Amino acid sequence: MVDLLEFFELANELKWVKRRGWITKVKVKQPESVADHSYLTALMCMVIADKKGLNSSKAVKMALFHDLAESITGDHMPNDPAKEMKKTKEAEAMKRILNKLPLKLRSDYHKLWKEYTSMSSKEAVLVHQLDKLEMAIQARDYRKKGYGYHLLEQFFLSAKDGIEDKELLKMLNSLKQAKA
Amino acid sequence: MVDLLEFFELANELKWVKRRGWITKVKVKQPESVADHSYLTALMCMVIADKKGLNSSKAVKMALFHDLAESITGDHMPNDPAKEMKKTKEAEAMKRILNKLPLKLRSDYHKLWKEYTSMSSKEAVLVHQLDKLEMAIQARDYRKKGYGYHLLEQFFLSAKDGIEDKELLKMLNSLKQAKA
Repeated sequence: MVDLLEFFELANELKWVKRRGWITKVKVKQPESVADHSYLTALMCMVIADKKGLNSSKAVKMALFHDLAESITGDHMPNDPAKEMKKTKEAEAMKRILNKLPLKLRSDYHKLWKEYTSMSSKEAVLVHQLDKLEMAIQARDYRKKGYGYHLLEQFFLSAKDGIEDKELLKMLNSLKQAKA
Repeated sequence: MVDLLEFFELANELKWVKRRGWITKVKVKQPESVADHSYLTALMCMVIADKKGLNSSKAVKMALFHDLAESITGDHMPNDPAKEMKKTKEAEAMKRILNKLPLKLRSDYHKLWKEYTSMSSKEAVLVHQLDKLEMAIQARDYRKKGYGYHLLEQFFLSAKDGIEDKELLKMLNSLKQAKA
């Protein structure tokens, strides 16, 4: 049933879903939330899309949605088993969430979500890369906060795997190489 | 000096700025961050602006920026003394932050920021109201988590002061009246 407030209250849950990778791999006790991560990713999408002359409105919307399913499924990590099952669960969760919205919005946002997951536009490709660069910015922040490089290096390497854009790779490198 | 990475690292600080009102008035130990709050506000702006046929791109950008100065100034509460001084400090901080961006973006975003603070467009007025409604959603969430209504009521009342739109007022009322 359409219920905007329920939609917002579901999204509010992302404030309390912690990004698990830092807990299990780096032993960060109170890492940032999925909402924290989504905020910075959206802001980065705005700036980089505007700078490149892409459709920043589209990129930012994709970023605001990109982890919304985790309000139901919780955070998962790239190396979790049964990746395909996760994808199905995520798609189901996303459908359940979008069903709270009026028909027109539901259909528009579902289209955007498909565009994002299938990486079928320049904006979608950008959001995927900035999702990774955001993680590297956070890794650099944990480095500054005193966590060991030997634990954080895997995050920089994983980010590198997901970034092709030269400008973004340059930023990634300076994050990786920065002194503690 | 223009430095996109520094801009992003500054914005990253919002993950660690806690929303102080809940700590001092409700004794919440680990409240949501300013980035958490900005995430949900931006998402709400997207949905409501799209629903009302307003410029959602503009509204979302304003929401992503609306508390960015707090990465430098920290969070402040509506009743803090010397409100005017805070405003000046906020404007200075915002200038410092936007100076990290290339000239064209700096000027575009500064214009948006002025539009937001002066409430000189329908989108700006909407963002101010959703900033308040977001707080009420969070108050309702703390109510569910067991914090007392006698402590939370002031947040619903403060939200009511800032909301004029009928649809949003209706949502606020159902948040306020919901059983624990």
